[in-house]
Amino acid sequence: MSEYFIAGGDRAVFQRDKAAKVDLCRGAQLFVGLNCFEAGQTQKVHAHSAADKFYYVCSGRARLTVGEETREVGAGEIVWAPAGVPHGVEQALERTVLLVGIAPPPRQSAEGRPAVGVRREPDA
Amino acid sequence: MSEYFIAGGDRAVFQRDKAAKVDLCRGAQLFVGLNCFEAGQTQKVHAHSAADKFYYVCSGRARLTVGEETREVGAGEIVWAPAGVPHGVEQALERTVLLVGIAPPPRQSAEGRPAVGVRREPDA
Repeated sequence: MSEYFIAGGDRAVFQRDKAAKVDLCRGAQLFVGLNCFEAGQTQKVHAHSAADKFYYVCSGRARLTVGEETREVGAGEIVWAPAGVPHGVEQALERTVLLVGIAPPPRQSAEGRPAVGVRREPDA
Repeated sequence: MSEYFIAGGDRAVFQRDKAAKVDLCRGAQLFVGLNCFEAGQTQKVHAHSAADKFYYVCSGRARLTVGEETREVGAGEIVWAPAGVPHGVEQALERTVLLVGIAPPPRQSAEGRPAVGVRREPDA
């Protein structure tokens, strides 16, 4: 597999009990991964005090919260959570794949926050 | 318009003479925007010495180069260009929209590199 050319949504994995995470790329400045939700799954509202983050909806439909706003978003939409602003997924309304970018990267695996859900190792 | 909830691919703009850029979000650590190509348009190979970058193919089909590799990519694929590694778009094979994330953000507007193409101001 190429170091630079990476399958995206194809790499999604799903878990019955909670949302799953997949690491895609990690540099000194930027982390990119997937957050994968079955319908009804959630991601607790949390904040990264010093990291900017965005979600891009690859597929599906979900209600996300950032700051005081909660909105339903679908494929092709972007949700921006700048450093310090609380954000989370209130609920996936169907099977949903979110591309996530975080800068600087979390110290550990995807977001490194056990409270958000135990990360599943990517298959490859 | 919401500060946090941002239309994505809908914001694409196209120019006849060269690829167009749209800024979507900018924080202290991360910039997110679109690179929009008509079929046949290109982005010169260039490198960001201290910034990590990725492209996510929102729509279309294009041949991208990173390091020594050139590949054709389509919707849903990710191309990773870590700091210092030269990258560019050899050619868009059809109308193509790339979501781009760069960390840390370029000092100026999208990538701040006149050599890559003059940026068009987003309409909104």
